[in-house]
Amino acid sequence: MNLLQQAARPRAINLASSPFARLLPVSPLAVTLGGQFWGPRQARNARVSLLTQFEQLEEWGNLDNFRRLQNPDMGPFRGKVFNDTDVYKWIEAVCWVLAVEPSPRLQEKLDLVLDLIEAAQCADGYLNTWYAVERADERWSNLRDNHELYCAGHLLQAAVAHHRTQGNRRLLNVAIRFADLICAVFGSVVEGKNPGIDGHEEIELALVELYRETGNAAYLRQAEHFIDARGYGQLKGGWFGLEYFQDHAPLRKLNAMAGHAVRALYYNSGAADVFLETGDPSLLQTLTQLWRHMQAHQIYISGGLGSRHHGEALGADYELPNAQAYTETCAAIGSMMWNQRMLAATGDAQYAELIEHTLYNAMLPGWSLDGKRYFYVNPLANDGSHSRQTWYECACCPPNVARTIAALSGSVYSTSPGAIWVHLYADNTADIDLEGWRVGLTQKTRYPWDGDIEITVDASHRFDLMLRIPTWAGPQASVSINGKAEAHEIEAGQYLKLQRVWQPGDRIRISLPMPVRVMQSHPHVLENAGRVALMRGPLLYCVEAADHPGVSLLDIELPTGHDSAIDWEPELLDGVVVLRLLGRLPMPERRWNNALYQEQGGSGWQSARDVQLTAIPYYAWHNRAAGPMQVWLKQTVPESTYG
Amino acid sequence: MNLLQQAARPRAINLASSPFARLLPVSPLAVTLGGQFWGPRQARNARVSLLTQFEQLEEWGNLDNFRRLQNPDMGPFRGKVFNDTDVYKWIEAVCWVLAVEPSPRLQEKLDLVLDLIEAAQCADGYLNTWYAVERADERWSNLRDNHELYCAGHLLQAAVAHHRTQGNRRLLNVAIRFADLICAVFGSVVEGKNPGIDGHEEIELALVELYRETGNAAYLRQAEHFIDARGYGQLKGGWFGLEYFQDHAPLRKLNAMAGHAVRALYYNSGAADVFLETGDPSLLQTLTQLWRHMQAHQIYISGGLGSRHHGEALGADYELPNAQAYTETCAAIGSMMWNQRMLAATGDAQYAELIEHTLYNAMLPGWSLDGKRYFYVNPLANDGSHSRQTWYECACCPPNVARTIAALSGSVYSTSPGAIWVHLYADNTADIDLEGWRVGLTQKTRYPWDGDIEITVDASHRFDLMLRIPTWAGPQASVSINGKAEAHEIEAGQYLKLQRVWQPGDRIRISLPMPVRVMQSHPHVLENAGRVALMRGPLLYCVEAADHPGVSLLDIELPTGHDSAIDWEPELLDGVVVLRLLGRLPMPERRWNNALYQEQGGSGWQSARDVQLTAIPYYAWHNRAAGPMQVWLKQTVPESTYG
Repeated sequence: MNLLQQAARPRAINLASSPFARLLPVSPLAVTLGGQFWGPRQARNARVSLLTQFEQLEEWGNLDNFRRLQNPDMGPFRGKVFNDTDVYKWIEAVCWVLAVEPSPRLQEKLDLVLDLIEAAQCADGYLNTWYAVERADERWSNLRDNHELYCAGHLLQAAVAHHRTQGNRRLLNVAIRFADLICAVFGSVVEGKNPGIDGHEEIELALVELYRETGNAAYLRQAEHFIDARGYGQLKGGWFGLEYFQDHAPLRKLNAMAGHAVRALYYNSGAADVFLETGDPSLLQTLTQLWRHMQAHQIYISGGLGSRHHGEALGADYELPNAQAYTETCAAIGSMMWNQRMLAATGDAQYAELIEHTLYNAMLPGWSLDGKRYFYVNPLANDGSHSRQTWYECACCPPNVARTIAALSGSVYSTSPGAIWVHLYADNTADIDLEGWRVGLTQKTRYPWDGDIEITVDASHRFDLMLRIPTWAGPQASVSINGKAEAHEIEAGQYLKLQRVWQPGDRIRISLPMPVRVMQSHPHVLENAGRVALMRGPLLYCVEAADHPGVSLLDIELPTGHDSAIDWEPELLDGVVVLRLLGRLPMPERRWNNALYQEQGGSGWQSARDVQLTAIPYYAWHNRAAGPMQVWLKQTVPESTYG
Repeated sequence: MNLLQQAARPRAINLASSPFARLLPVSPLAVTLGGQFWGPRQARNARVSLLTQFEQLEEWGNLDNFRRLQNPDMGPFRGKVFNDTDVYKWIEAVCWVLAVEPSPRLQEKLDLVLDLIEAAQCADGYLNTWYAVERADERWSNLRDNHELYCAGHLLQAAVAHHRTQGNRRLLNVAIRFADLICAVFGSVVEGKNPGIDGHEEIELALVELYRETGNAAYLRQAEHFIDARGYGQLKGGWFGLEYFQDHAPLRKLNAMAGHAVRALYYNSGAADVFLETGDPSLLQTLTQLWRHMQAHQIYISGGLGSRHHGEALGADYELPNAQAYTETCAAIGSMMWNQRMLAATGDAQYAELIEHTLYNAMLPGWSLDGKRYFYVNPLANDGSHSRQTWYECACCPPNVARTIAALSGSVYSTSPGAIWVHLYADNTADIDLEGWRVGLTQKTRYPWDGDIEITVDASHRFDLMLRIPTWAGPQASVSINGKAEAHEIEAGQYLKLQRVWQPGDRIRISLPMPVRVMQSHPHVLENAGRVALMRGPLLYCVEAADHPGVSLLDIELPTGHDSAIDWEPELLDGVVVLRLLGRLPMPERRWNNALYQEQGGSGWQSARDVQLTAIPYYAWHNRAAGPMQVWLKQTVPESTYG
């Protein structure tokens, strides 16, 4: 690939020169998402979300925090110490949108914001609107709580995205000057430097990306330093203890993620980025262990992470409350970031599967269908009190959603020497550069609503097409080329390798069966005892009050062996497949009317009535009216069970 | 009753002149607890806990915070803004101990502390060691967060206890000067006063007690003002929202307690105190509703309150996680305080029953058997990570336990015109003043280990003896006088009235059956689905790892219809009755080894082995070694249950 191509086709994570990347992400600009699902969503992000987010940045003072540096009479700093990062993440999203589709309105706002940022930078490169004016002398005085390097990291990410997509160095120059200052200030005591680390990871992965963009290895070394310096307890004294900051043990000594979920996931992402550049086997080994432990003990069925409101923390093994789930939208995004890097490092389908699962079931619920509201917290059961908001005092999630959606096209495919990898199924056309050869791929599919995908190849040379077969598709998945079934044994949870000299017009049909799956959880997940959840294809389902007026969703029972009907509802919730089931609604026995605890006796339940149930995709809940919602449903237990 | 008698027999809550008290508490000094259970515990409180607590007050700087007011060079204020209250609660406990048993060591320490407090008071009566020296100009500047009136309330309570028990006005004079200042400062805006309320209730009940002690009705009116001014949102802006402070709605509009559990319970106690003086029916009506709602939706089987670490909050209805239970020891004490006032207002046995239940199962677990360590948080299940500590950065609980134990004797009996009420069964001798008549009562019993109680009466006149028959005793409870069975129908959950002209030596035998009770919880308590808990008499039981090495307590199953054997173990845990049961230990199926979620199939469990179980009283857990503990045990479900 020549430099011109690289400039023309920027990657969201630029691993083009990363020696330990097995897979190379394809540029978001090489893939155009269409169809009914992602195409309209990307358009809504560009045309609705990013404009309303800009309004919020003005309303909540994030931009005024920059303006007051020139004009301190404007009044005090507004909002949280990390409010600059909302601006930076918004820039990143806007840059990816503008790279695809000119928008004078967004361009004008971007130029305005860039002017503010350039003007806010100090002569020595420092840039942070909290530590300015009246606090200009307090730099680096509270790394634990005040997010200085976290803010810097998001500035670096924004600058890298801007440079890659907009073809000028305005913001990159700002970032380089700040990064150089950070490298000069922080390091080991024996070098006479500040040995501190930030209370919230982010700078690590950002420095690696800046290294990739500039080739300056000092940034990679600085990222390594920040990872290696964590875990020795220097952040002591916080309300939530050292685990909150992942400062309780060095990364390489960890067996499980702990503490604040978003912090932990950004940390892992940074460590994976360092691995992709250095190949340090202890990093990949640790990250693999943390991932395995997470999958078996810490993750919600939605893919969400973070069980506790208290400390926004991962929680103990199997501690997965539903109504009290925290599962911050940013944690889902952090998980996607980490898994993208693990996928690049290994080519293991499990990471791609979790990216897809998290995208649909943990990140997407955080964004309303009209593009204007966001969940910060994503419970798996609700009594009707939880609502999406247009913005938050701590507004990390909305622009994080925007930048993820804006660059989503880059997650569909990867390349490796002689191979193209298909990670996600989604209606799209792609124009992929494979070692200088142009490969056109067109996916026609209604996915995620059914599992039939037709891929048309526009190429005339040999390469391997690696098709991800989701675990849930099972052994019934089938693949044909030009009408001829593949003789391969198809293994779910792996990539199916199609080796061939391809001809223009070659047609691959993939059929991924999508029966409704009745899911159980591990017996140690106490809140789910006797309960099941419904999934179909990549989607988790739920029931919500809008479809069941007057029904107590917590009490609904699904008979074992029930049948589900599947209906495409084009007018409902922007078009969804719903599940129709016949459930039962027993009521708690009368003896429970005024009691919480009683001596054993009776089944606990009175006689039931039938109730028609409609399950909708979990991502789509709370788009009609606020109301109760339930993912896990009680399963009917024979009357004889309780003594 | 004449003044001498009142002075000689101070009450812990002095309702002697409260017009709306149906029952009048008996002085703690009139009752001597003996036997195996409470006698030794009160002695340990006096001889161990209060001395080690004094050491902690020195070590953590609580007393130095007073000393530095005379000598600011001693260094900065240490600890939390409310650290003065640890000292005040310690004083209250010491005063009750010294009233019973002279202790030169405690007396000397008390005198020292009183000197410090007197010296710390400002000329205008103000007293708070945080708002002193460098912050002396910042008084009343942050009522929401800085606990100024909360601290004042505990000072008032200490002063009242000191005056009642020690027969001098040293501390009372300090309290009166401060209370007068508070009355002058706080009130309605139209009076030109500060309309503020404290972020943590406590001042309300303290002012009522000071009114009772001094007869100055200004204090009662001030307590009413603080209750009436809450609920209008003036504390806005906190991290946890208005509910945290009970400032989201006026008391009389509440249907359920909400927010921070200890705050809510102290608030209710203060409101009940105001009712006892004013008879305002809207107060009693509201408090009765809050109590009913609590009993049916918010309380743990232990009697503990507070389901969330986040905001130390009560949580939603039926939100009662076990390992993540908060159930602060202070919340149990706050519940006892509130219930004592509700009992006095109504004579309803349900309040006495909850006092007893909370005492044994929610307050007592907070105190180690050696008297030196405390739980702040009381989970109902644990993985071995939770431990009692000698002290806490926020050390509200230890001295709160000490003052509760010190005055416990006052909770055993009450009087009303012509009647003596027996609320608690416990080995004791009592010398009760009933309208000028002296009544001697002696309880001989091994309670709570068995339900046989013998009460010997030393009196020779007519009065009603009201015996509380616990709900759990059921219809098999029996009572005899001098060997003759009472013909009355005995109703559990009520007081049995024995009307008689008593003669010296009359002997009442009460038999309260104590079978092991297998308890279920309401079907909406999700973590307890399919689980049962064991109770016997007033005690909740649990299993802990010390008795079951190598057994996963979370997985233990109790077969339905199992038999329990009961063993008195005099050497174990200071003497306890243990339950012996035969349980089963199934293991999660192998298919769960590396999975959290899977399609339904199998029962979830592999074949089981028998396991001998020993259940100990929940209050006694964690007195041998740190280790897992479990209150709710899985109940065996027939193999056929899951499809």
